Amino acid sequence: MSKVSPLVDGLIEAMQCLPGVGPKSAQRMVLHLLERNRDGGILLADIMAKAIEGVGKCQKCRIFTESEVCAICSNEKRDKSCICVVESVSDVFAIEQSNQFNGNYFILHGHLSPIDDIGPDQLALEKLFNLAKSEEVKELILATNSTLEGETTAHYIYDYLKDLDDLRLTKLAQGVPLGGELEYVDRGTIMHAFSGRVELKE
Amino acid sequence: MSKVSPLVDGLIEAMQCLPGVGPKSAQRMVLHLLERNRDGGILLADIMAKAIEGVGKCQKCRIFTESEVCAICSNEKRDKSCICVVESVSDVFAIEQSNQFNGNYFILHGHLSPIDDIGPDQLALEKLFNLAKSEEVKELILATNSTLEGETTAHYIYDYLKDLDDLRLTKLAQGVPLGGELEYVDRGTIMHAFSGRVELKE
Repeated sequence: MSKVSPLVDGLIEAMQCLPGVGPKSAQRMVLHLLERNRDGGILLADIMAKAIEGVGKCQKCRIFTESEVCAICSNEKRDKSCICVVESVSDVFAIEQSNQFNGNYFILHGHLSPIDDIGPDQLALEKLFNLAKSEEVKELILATNSTLEGETTAHYIYDYLKDLDDLRLTKLAQGVPLGGELEYVDRGTIMHAFSGRVELKE
Repeated sequence: MSKVSPLVDGLIEAMQCLPGVGPKSAQRMVLHLLERNRDGGILLADIMAKAIEGVGKCQKCRIFTESEVCAICSNEKRDKSCICVVESVSDVFAIEQSNQFNGNYFILHGHLSPIDDIGPDQLALEKLFNLAKSEEVKELILATNSTLEGETTAHYIYDYLKDLDDLRLTKLAQGVPLGGELEYVDRGTIMHAFSGRVELKE
């Protein structure tokens, strides 16, 4: 802290609300903005205020958007019968980048975690269940994270919906990641990769 | 890029004006703000706009401040006869943290670099020279960085002022850093440490 300027000190302090930014990098960022990129800083402050003010959740899939219904949900070319359920918006970004999925999404914004007071209501599971029961949905891909909480959440959803006859429930394939060296793959993954091994001879 | 929301995409883009922030960490920061800390984001945007708008340079030492004269320059308890000349505001923060210096500063905001079009005018050397010539200043510590450009800048200042009889011109001691293992100290530093070695017997 400089104690030279309350505004500069305040900005260094406020900068630390960003994830991964401590006192040192906050100071570097602030001095960089003041020294070399005031226009960029003004623009950043402006769009940050506008985005936080204007961005809410899509009424259908709960992704962050400033519209009522997001661009993915309102895209007529996407397959509305297949819904991929993910924990967070960054999962959607990752899947979209792979260009492998042309269905719609449902973002839980978290996972079941009684200890943090996150139950079915916080994840809008009621909304997901209604969607799953609707005529147009044929498949739900449960793509929550492969962690204890993620698996628990997927199991909870599976349990509630498993008796719907017309609904296919799937999860992502588990195994050795592409380019992963077997030596460095963890035990659990190797276990899954073995038990899910694929026949080579047709 | 998500292509889901222009505002979210725009904020991810704008975030990358911060030093050390690429597309991936920008995305993580934006989703973190939207997901978990909207209040912090609003506050950050607000103080960022205010700081960039309101913070200028101290009329005396050129540090960033919202006042005409900064807290250091207007502090009566500090020794106005000794001026420490540094390249950037972060140098001042580092020196202040060490609590070893009670004089005033002069911030060049850079170093001489003809290739980047940075000459004596950009560093306000005229202002520094006038300050050095004033009655109250007795010593100038040239604490520019120990790089080629920093040394050149210090030498330029030294050259201009060396004939002033009443002015002491000094530079920081060079040698092995505290806690530094000799094995990992670079050749130039070892050279300086040897040539500047200190007598142990009084």
